[in-house]
Amino acid sequence: MTETEIPEDHPRYASLVTRHRIEAGVEQGITSKQGLIAQGRGEAFDYLLGERTLPSADAAARAAAATLLLAERPVISVNGNVAALAPAETVDLAEAVDADLEVNLFNHTDERVRRIADHLREHGADEVKGLAGDGEIPGLDHARGVVDADGIESADAVVVPLEDGDRAAALDAMGKTEIVIDLNPGSRSPQTADVPIIDNLLRAVPNVAAHARDLADATPAELERIADEFDADAALDAAEAAIREGSFADGDGA
Amino acid sequence: MTETEIPEDHPRYASLVTRHRIEAGVEQGITSKQGLIAQGRGEAFDYLLGERTLPSADAAARAAAATLLLAERPVISVNGNVAALAPAETVDLAEAVDADLEVNLFNHTDERVRRIADHLREHGADEVKGLAGDGEIPGLDHARGVVDADGIESADAVVVPLEDGDRAAALDAMGKTEIVIDLNPGSRSPQTADVPIIDNLLRAVPNVAAHARDLADATPAELERIADEFDADAALDAAEAAIREGSFADGDGA
Repeated sequence: MTETEIPEDHPRYASLVTRHRIEAGVEQGITSKQGLIAQGRGEAFDYLLGERTLPSADAAARAAAATLLLAERPVISVNGNVAALAPAETVDLAEAVDADLEVNLFNHTDERVRRIADHLREHGADEVKGLAGDGEIPGLDHARGVVDADGIESADAVVVPLEDGDRAAALDAMGKTEIVIDLNPGSRSPQTADVPIIDNLLRAVPNVAAHARDLADATPAELERIADEFDADAALDAAEAAIREGSFADGDGA
Repeated sequence: MTETEIPEDHPRYASLVTRHRIEAGVEQGITSKQGLIAQGRGEAFDYLLGERTLPSADAAARAAAATLLLAERPVISVNGNVAALAPAETVDLAEAVDADLEVNLFNHTDERVRRIADHLREHGADEVKGLAGDGEIPGLDHARGVVDADGIESADAVVVPLEDGDRAAALDAMGKTEIVIDLNPGSRSPQTADVPIIDNLLRAVPNVAAHARDLADATPAELERIADEFDADAALDAAEAAIREGSFADGDGA
C-alpha cells in the first residue's frame, strides 16, 4: 500500500500514514533500526495520550514559534525519524521561522547524512547543513558531538525533535535555547528543554509553523511575552497527568 | 557489542540484552520492521510498569502453568519477536509443560518460518511445527489464518505471546483456552485471553516455566483450583492501575 492509497477517512489514517513513512524510511536507508524501536515507543505514549494535541502542547507550540521568531540563528536538527516522518512539514517550518536545517544523527555516517539531506531537498529544502562536520558539541564522545560550525554550533535556538537525552543535555549546557518534541514527558530530553512539546511530531511540526505564521506581525515584545509566559514544568506535568489519568476502557486497543 | 559483552551488573542490562536480541533478529531475517515497532511499544509500557513483574502478573504466570499442565494438546505459538527475544526460554517452557512449538507469523513467508524454526532448533528445540500449513483459523483472511492441522488447529490450549488482536479473537472463537503475554493491558489480545500475562516476555516465559516445574507434582484438582481462582479482569485492572498510578518523578527517562 502506498501512502496515497490509504483512505483519508480511515479511522487510523494518521497512524497508518506514520507507519508507512517510517517503514519507507528504513527502505530508503534514512531510518535506523533504533529509529523503528523509538517509533514504537512514541506510538505507545501517543496511544496513552489519546492521540491528540493537549492544550498544554498547543501552548508549547506557540511558545516555540515565538522563540524561533525571536532567535537570531535558529536551527532545526533533523534525524532519520524526523526526515522519514515529516520531511515536507519540517522544511515548511524552517521557512516559516527562517531557520536553517541541519542533519544530525545519533548514529552518524556520511552516507546516511547525504541520503537524508537529499530526501529533504526532494521535499523542498534549499540548503541543508550537516555534512561539514567542522564544529562540535562539547562533553560528548566525538562521534556523538559532530555538528556544523555555522549550524548547530553557532545557533542560539535549536529545535531537536526526538532527541537523545545526553545530547539534549549537552546542547543545554552550551547555553542554547532548546525546543524538544517528544511524546514521553518522563524522558530526559523534554525535561531538559526550555520548550518541551509533548506531542506527535506529525501534529507538532505543522502546529509550530501555523503559530509562527499567525505571529508573523507580532512585535518582539509580544513574542517575548508569549515565550516568557510558557511554563515548561507545568506542560510536562499536564502531559503526565493526561497519560496517567486516562482510561483504556474507551480505547480500541493497539 | 555482542550479548556476552554487556556487563550483567549494568543498570540497564535487561533492556540492553533485549534490544541487542531484537536487532540481531532483524539481521537474521527473523524479526520484521513491524516487529521492531512493536518492540518499542512494549518498551514504553514496560517503562510505565516500572520494568517489574507485578504480583498480578506472577499469579497469571502460575495460572498459565496450571492451565498448560492440565491441557491435552498445548501449543506455544512463536512469531519473529518471540524467536528473537526468548528462543531458549521458549524452548524450555515447551519442555516444562510438554507443549508443541509452532511458528506462526502475522506476515507469513515460508522462508521466514524456516529461519525461525532453524533458530529455535539452534536453541534446543526438537520438533518445530508451522511449515505444513494444512490447517486454518476460521474467520481470518487466508494468509492470516494458516496453521498446522496437528498443531494450533487441534490444540486445546495455546500460548500466543505478542499476538495480534484479530488473531487472538479468532482463536478464542475456536474455543481454545488462550494464554497471552503482552505489556499493554489495553490491547485486544490480552483482553480476549483466558489468562493474560501483562509482563515483559523475557520475564514472563521463564516465570511460567518455573511455576510449571514447581507444580509438577500437583494433582489435577489442585491445578484446576489454581486455574479457576485466577481472575483475568482483575489482573488487567491491576496492570492498568500500575501504569496509570506510577510517577515519572523517580524514573531515569527513556
